[in-house]
Amino acid sequence: MPPERSQRTPSSRRIGVWCVGARGSISTCLVHGLSGLREGLLEPVGIATEREPFTRLPLVDLDDLVLGGHDVCTRDFAAGAEELVANGILRADLVGAASRDAASYEARIRPGILDQADVGLADLDPRSARLGSLPPREQIAALSADFEAFRRENELARVVVVNLASTEAQRAPRPEWRDLAAFERALDEGGTQPASIVYAYAAIASGSPYVNFTPNLGASIPALRELARQRRVPHAGNDGKTGETLVKTTLAPMFQARALKVLAWQGYNMLGNRDGAVLADPAHKETKVRNKDEALRTLLGQDSVHTHVGIDYVPSLQDWKTAWDFVHFEGFLGARMSLQFTWTGSDSALAAPLVLDLVRLADFAAERGESGEMLHTAAYFKAPVGGGTHDFHAQVQALHEYARLRAVPGPGSPR
Amino acid sequence: MPPERSQRTPSSRRIGVWCVGARGSISTCLVHGLSGLREGLLEPVGIATEREPFTRLPLVDLDDLVLGGHDVCTRDFAAGAEELVANGILRADLVGAASRDAASYEARIRPGILDQADVGLADLDPRSARLGSLPPREQIAALSADFEAFRRENELARVVVVNLASTEAQRAPRPEWRDLAAFERALDEGGTQPASIVYAYAAIASGSPYVNFTPNLGASIPALRELARQRRVPHAGNDGKTGETLVKTTLAPMFQARALKVLAWQGYNMLGNRDGAVLADPAHKETKVRNKDEALRTLLGQDSVHTHVGIDYVPSLQDWKTAWDFVHFEGFLGARMSLQFTWTGSDSALAAPLVLDLVRLADFAAERGESGEMLHTAAYFKAPVGGGTHDFHAQVQALHEYARLRAVPGPGSPR
Amino acid sequence: MPPERSQRTPSSRRIGVWCVGARGSISTCLVHGLSGLREGLLEPVGIATEREPFTRLPLVDLDDLVLGGHDVCTRDFAAGAEELVANGILRADLVGAASRDAASYEARIRPGILDQADVGLADLDPRSARLGSLPPREQIAALSADFEAFRRENELARVVVVNLASTEAQRAPRPEWRDLAAFERALDEGGTQPASIVYAYAAIASGSPYVNFTPNLGASIPALRELARQRRVPHAGNDGKTGETLVKTTLAPMFQARALKVLAWQGYNMLGNRDGAVLADPAHKETKVRNKDEALRTLLGQDSVHTHVGIDYVPSLQDWKTAWDFVHFEGFLGARMSLQFTWTGSDSALAAPLVLDLVRLADFAAERGESGEMLHTAAYFKAPVGGGTHDFHAQVQALHEYARLRAVPGPGSPR
Amino acid sequence: MPPERSQRTPSSRRIGVWCVGARGSISTCLVHGLSGLREGLLEPVGIATEREPFTRLPLVDLDDLVLGGHDVCTRDFAAGAEELVANGILRADLVGAASRDAASYEARIRPGILDQADVGLADLDPRSARLGSLPPREQIAALSADFEAFRRENELARVVVVNLASTEAQRAPRPEWRDLAAFERALDEGGTQPASIVYAYAAIASGSPYVNFTPNLGASIPALRELARQRRVPHAGNDGKTGETLVKTTLAPMFQARALKVLAWQGYNMLGNRDGAVLADPAHKETKVRNKDEALRTLLGQDSVHTHVGIDYVPSLQDWKTAWDFVHFEGFLGARMSLQFTWTGSDSALAAPLVLDLVRLADFAAERGESGEMLHTAAYFKAPVGGGTHDFHAQVQALHEYARLRAVPGPGSPR
Repeated sequence: MPPERSQRTPSSRRIGVWCVGARGSISTCLVHGLSGLREGLLEPVGIATEREPFTRLPLVDLDDLVLGGHDVCTRDFAAGAEELVANGILRADLVGAASRDAASYEARIRPGILDQADVGLADLDPRSARLGSLPPREQIAALSADFEAFRRENELARVVVVNLASTEAQRAPRPEWRDLAAFERALDEGGTQPASIVYAYAAIASGSPYVNFTPNLGASIPALRELARQRRVPHAGNDGKTGETLVKTTLAPMFQARALKVLAWQGYNMLGNRDGAVLADPAHKETKVRNKDEALRTLLGQDSVHTHVGIDYVPSLQDWKTAWDFVHFEGFLGARMSLQFTWTGSDSALAAPLVLDLVRLADFAAERGESGEMLHTAAYFKAPVGGGTHDFHAQVQALHEYARLRAVPGPGSPR
Repeated sequence: MPPERSQRTPSSRRIGVWCVGARGSISTCLVHGLSGLREGLLEPVGIATEREPFTRLPLVDLDDLVLGGHDVCTRDFAAGAEELVANGILRADLVGAASRDAASYEARIRPGILDQADVGLADLDPRSARLGSLPPREQIAALSADFEAFRRENELARVVVVNLASTEAQRAPRPEWRDLAAFERALDEGGTQPASIVYAYAAIASGSPYVNFTPNLGASIPALRELARQRRVPHAGNDGKTGETLVKTTLAPMFQARALKVLAWQGYNMLGNRDGAVLADPAHKETKVRNKDEALRTLLGQDSVHTHVGIDYVPSLQDWKTAWDFVHFEGFLGARMSLQFTWTGSDSALAAPLVLDLVRLADFAAERGESGEMLHTAAYFKAPVGGGTHDFHAQVQALHEYARLRAVPGPGSPR
Repeated sequence: MPPERSQRTPSSRRIGVWCVGARGSISTCLVHGLSGLREGLLEPVGIATEREPFTRLPLVDLDDLVLGGHDVCTRDFAAGAEELVANGILRADLVGAASRDAASYEARIRPGILDQADVGLADLDPRSARLGSLPPREQIAALSADFEAFRRENELARVVVVNLASTEAQRAPRPEWRDLAAFERALDEGGTQPASIVYAYAAIASGSPYVNFTPNLGASIPALRELARQRRVPHAGNDGKTGETLVKTTLAPMFQARALKVLAWQGYNMLGNRDGAVLADPAHKETKVRNKDEALRTLLGQDSVHTHVGIDYVPSLQDWKTAWDFVHFEGFLGARMSLQFTWTGSDSALAAPLVLDLVRLADFAAERGESGEMLHTAAYFKAPVGGGTHDFHAQVQALHEYARLRAVPGPGSPR
Repeated sequence: MPPERSQRTPSSRRIGVWCVGARGSISTCLVHGLSGLREGLLEPVGIATEREPFTRLPLVDLDDLVLGGHDVCTRDFAAGAEELVANGILRADLVGAASRDAASYEARIRPGILDQADVGLADLDPRSARLGSLPPREQIAALSADFEAFRRENELARVVVVNLASTEAQRAPRPEWRDLAAFERALDEGGTQPASIVYAYAAIASGSPYVNFTPNLGASIPALRELARQRRVPHAGNDGKTGETLVKTTLAPMFQARALKVLAWQGYNMLGNRDGAVLADPAHKETKVRNKDEALRTLLGQDSVHTHVGIDYVPSLQDWKTAWDFVHFEGFLGARMSLQFTWTGSDSALAAPLVLDLVRLADFAAERGESGEMLHTAAYFKAPVGGGTHDFHAQVQALHEYARLRAVPGPGSPR
């Protein structure tokens, strides 16, 4: 298996990737994948930034990424890796090859802050529970100190904070989220805030680019978008578009382009990992379902279309997300037709390379002085913070256009 | 069901649509669909040119299309319509409403020329067999006379010739097809030519725009492409992209954009109409399979991908093309995943509105003096005559760009 | 289409089929199907009692069935038939051929009693609402009078009452249902009872065999099972096994026989007819889901299996029930595998022939003096009243054994 | 994972299992599975003889099976196991736990005889090529000597020979196969015979029960069936029913029982293992396809049904057989419906436990003095040697009946 990765000139810039949800399966895939790439055991499959037109950008080398993170549970990192091996997602030889990297990564994991709506977690880190009950200003201070220590100890040029945590409970909008001044007052008053918002605040206030791969609020509230512009920090989110929604937003424009009338689009998702267990709780499921459904409804642009998104927890599937979509549509003469598809993919193995792309793009944007919503990354998200079309191909074109406009001209021919 | 069709100012230009394969099911759908639209019994579902951005072009009104055509069989037109009703494709009320239009259409059907590789057709028109055995110059004269009579009798501003016939047997390339001079000599020498080539020659030489909706050679040989440029006639083809290949060329770029590695793409098609019966013969199937497979292989751009396209004749399905595709792909960490889809669509009901779009676009191009390959219509074909990408969304964008550049500015806001 | 129906000697016995839900789509299929068979326009596809071993039983001839029924709505019967034509379920020629039968059938429809939990029906018959508010003894008297008038006016040897109504709201068990004496007291006291129970009581008390094709309680409560034994009336139910559950109870024993370990069985049902609209209400859905799920869990006999049954209302599908089932299972060595299926069937066209089978078998049982639960009909139901295995093949074997034991020996060789 | 295997009293009878195709993936699964069961690392999933009613038969204990075999290639056994691990079929821990068993097994593998129609095998054992060119009497002598050495060296009470080799090329019937005397003469004359026939002869002539898990001829020719009766040896075959055909023969009787009319049944199989590579050759594919199709056609009992079985080689799938079946059927009123299923299973992990069942049943039959075709094992085969119904549930019932009639009464309650 000859590694096909692009050859870039060595760089002295080391970039930190701070994973919120550091013991989760996406983080596990990141740690083992980067080791495997370094050792030449893996091809860079799934990493779009290893291909044209991104190879013409001076992105950070994958070998120069250093991982660390927060988590609220104490689950053994190696046990998580073994589970992914048993699931047929991680190769056993990668676990062996990455064992040293994994150990030093685990040593860099710090207790995160528990979201107050999340209780009863089996293997909760008591330090996280304690952090979760502190006033938000104190939480922010603790997180910022962790980011800073990580940067200093690893001699990092920059830390990119990535939220990979489980889905939080749905929250009603609060007036204090509408602008930064109101939000700062609320922080001063000491009432609790959703954990994802606290993390995002801490990251942006520390000048760290921030990527929200979850459906949680994170930096998407107006107050934090204002903060990012003010501090000149780039950020991206929400809710990684890894599987069924990726297919949906690829197929829906096809029906539009052909003037076919979609009558109904039913999507049934099943998954069995920790994410699935959390989503089995209706309060947590709602955010996720809304994102998946809204992308579709916007694309079809029809009020009359009947849509449904279901997410069911099926423990035996573990990380293998399996989704069935049924599209009922009408053609010329009123003839009724259908398209159905079954998607079977490892959610974590699909997510991890997207995270690598986003970290590189976030670092690149920060390096260039770009700030605020990274509109060009919409292709990566179910609910892009900056809005815009959900049409996957249109999003990809915008992303490629962004890259081409910033490409470094050079003697080296692109791969 | 209030008709939603765009309101255009009445035009005095009546355009003829000459269907080669005039008794086939696509033609049947065209005749009944146009009647139904005229009577307000149908919505213009499936007709992209009834939507933005095409509504800003001065396209011929659907009410101003007059249909006629050639066929080599004597099958009763009404019987074909009844079959589509029994199949659940044509509504019984449309057959009633269109009966007068259908009768006058049938009166305009003329005997076509039988392709010499096609023998043993059950309900063959003996006049077609005779025409099929004439030298090509005489065939061309007969066809041209039919086009001209159709134009004159119906006071048409222009006739667009559309090939909707069954798939011909695969033909080995001939030297005489390489340039126009050689081809003219071959015609003079009197050797037989594939019927689709004779039709295309007759159309183009008569100044009629030509659309090849079949996988047959038609105007795609270099000699006829030269003829079209010389006579300043626009033409489009080959092989309408109606169903499985439409989905394939929509999905394949998604895998590319995500840097996922497609390992295998197996496509199994089943159909039961006359087209299916013809394709049950391996000689006829080869052309079709090649077009379907080549689009995919080009898009995936991987030599290592394993692809297969099967087409099976399943009589009970009649016009209901049912296809199952299985995509095996590799993601990050070497994890193996799959996407499978089942497409169930009426091939004829899908094809007919594309034919309407193409006729309008061909007439529009001719009206503007555009000639040669209509490159902007690639989205409609499995094997676009002018080549270019098979990426459906990229093709649609090019088409929309073409339309926007030629849009008529005006006080009327677009629909 | 040569009719293949078995030839039986003419019989003077005419049997009435009283449809509760007389304007619903199953009833519509029954009326048109019987006409079509009589006229030789249809083959008896789907009617098992037209095949071996049932052809050796002296079952009532299909031509000797006379239909009538109750309904609570005023929907025009012809409009319902037109809807089934538009859906591609009923052939237009059958509607023409059956028009006289349909008219006389509609004349025999009487207002039914509205279940008190069902309110807000759009086209409710006001007479049904009034009947629904009467004390149960008066309801029973009204229904019995209708049965009797039907029998007398049509010179019927017997009336079989079949419940084909929509799913009722789930009811908590009541002590008064536990035995007949308690139930009679409750009737005397005049409190309301679910409509399905009132119908079942009226039928059985009148000596009419009773078939419950719905998931409603009907004759399945102990009190009515006691009544049936006392009055020596045969009855069968509950909840016709037409589609997804049929496939489930056929496949589940396969996994058992091979000692494969089913980990999860997820079933997603979509339908768009009136039944679907009623099931969109969670109170009504519960009964149906329970029956579908219990059959499966019993068959798999594993406490650890994860099962789920979903039913979603998708209006555009109308009568076309579409279901997707995903079975995740473990084989030798712990290898994890899957089977998934998609079922696309017309619920009413599947149900109607089962009703014909059950009517014939109920009449046959009554004729022979058999009474109580028709245990041999378990193959027809999701929740057989008499219990027993859910294994479809075992149920079919028991049914065939029943028939063979009662077969009429004769000179005529069986078909 | 507490082992659930039935506890039987220790027995002194050790039984040999001689695998023809000893380096293939089924053999690999057998070796590792038996080790895993012995070590308590596996549950006996997939082994029907570990369940009721077989637990009441004095079958040989799985711990008393000793494996050996023939193969014509030199592929490293451990490499084959690693491939199954990489495929997610074999757990890595099992390979570790079984390493000693695997080494002693590999030491017992002897060169097999190459079938003369099989040439060009990459890793062919030159000794097998030489054996393949010997006259059949000499081949038989060599095989018999191997069986005998295996028996003696391992102190086995009996050797059961199981054919697990790749599919042989289709052979035209020969007159010499019609009876034993003619066959013996043909052997004397020294012309080559298909390898599977030579193995079967050698086994039966040595008094070893014989199981043919392949579609190859083996003992199914009349001459060898005669030999088996003469030597009083039980045998079973042909062609293990592991996946798609298992589902087919379970579902087809359902349509029959409901009097539904199957119009078309299309089955598409894809697989990527060595078996798949062999089947990519049309000569080898024909036998397999015929077995799969014949089972179906017999069950549906309809001349008019349109069936198709495809088998395609898709290397990336490796041992993961993926099959899609589409069933088009007609119900009451002529309504057309469909059932489609996708089967995803590891062919080898499905086959191995069936082999264990068959070995135990063959030994049991021999121990009881039963001989000839083991008719009760039809449930295990696509083309049962003794014929009979293909209805899977009927076959299972016959098998259970066989077991119940021979059950050992005893104080121990059955599991």
